[in-house]
Amino acid sequence: MNVNILFFNDFEALDAFGPIEILSKVEECKLNSYSLDGGIIASTQGTSVLTEKLETAPKDGILVIPGGVGVRALFSDSQFLMKLKEAVEQSCYCLTVCTGSGLLARTGLLDGKKATSNKRVFDWVASSNLNVNWIKSARWVVDGKYYTSSGVSAGMDMTLGFIKDRFGDDKANSIARLIEYIWNSDSSLDLFAR
Amino acid sequence: MNVNILFFNDFEALDAFGPIEILSKVEECKLNSYSLDGGIIASTQGTSVLTEKLETAPKDGILVIPGGVGVRALFSDSQFLMKLKEAVEQSCYCLTVCTGSGLLARTGLLDGKKATSNKRVFDWVASSNLNVNWIKSARWVVDGKYYTSSGVSAGMDMTLGFIKDRFGDDKANSIARLIEYIWNSDSSLDLFAR
Repeated sequence: MNVNILFFNDFEALDAFGPIEILSKVEECKLNSYSLDGGIIASTQGTSVLTEKLETAPKDGILVIPGGVGVRALFSDSQFLMKLKEAVEQSCYCLTVCTGSGLLARTGLLDGKKATSNKRVFDWVASSNLNVNWIKSARWVVDGKYYTSSGVSAGMDMTLGFIKDRFGDDKANSIARLIEYIWNSDSSLDLFAR
Repeated sequence: MNVNILFFNDFEALDAFGPIEILSKVEECKLNSYSLDGGIIASTQGTSVLTEKLETAPKDGILVIPGGVGVRALFSDSQFLMKLKEAVEQSCYCLTVCTGSGLLARTGLLDGKKATSNKRVFDWVASSNLNVNWIKSARWVVDGKYYTSSGVSAGMDMTLGFIKDRFGDDKANSIARLIEYIWNSDSSLDLFAR
């Protein structure tokens, strides 16, 4: 199964690399890095990653959308949102971390669905699309093929939750042990919600 | 203060990007990516990062050494170990994650010092240098300028511990909150030790 990570300039490093680390431990998964135009993409943290053009991504894969400062400019980038919508529609599952759910919401594909986001900028993300049922207190939220997580680190807990749903509890726990991660496995327990 | 991340082929993504995420939240820190020869370096997870040549790194910075499958080949790479030793000697602090402590041990600079590592391959890492006082049960260990952590995710807890030691408890806790990370702040509590 293909995992397609969507990078953009000023993405938040751990939003992407938490899920990448965890999904790489699933033997069935092959990880690929994309951005709208391909090439070198810089995180807010300064680390630059190499990507390929989004439209070359294999269809029917798991699409991972990180958040980060770069999300803000993309909210009104109609070309980006159109290509994103296409990629989301072609994915079998779509996982977003932090403000990545705001990007997903801007495509309209979350309309009428439950989702969550970073708790510090929650109201701003929610304002991106009022047709989404934004959940204020959740480590992560699942609605159909959409998995949306709270801020940064919550993406790791969500990804383990996704693996539990797809591959079973034992697999999720064995990956957590392998990377010595103390998994916060209760999606409804949100210590960072106001 | 410069943070110099040392990448090598087949590094473990979260070993590097956990500390990168956290250190990027310290206003005083500037993050830089290096490898022995510079250029593009691939993680085991498939994501490739852009690096500069290690010998161009600013001196007196914080050196971060991830672990990963790539460590194995470097254990007997005398050219790499010589340059690494030089970089470690020039650093004001050196943080290692997972099997990265094995690389540090191979330079001889951990001789007589306390250190820890990944718990799954602990005996193998310890065999890299028997003059190190290897601590079997610890989330992370501090000895002088050296911070060494257990496997993968433990690097985030260690980095927050490092920030607490340098910048205070409030700073460490505020970064953990910012990235919605539930910090395992007790360095002696190791749930993954046998």
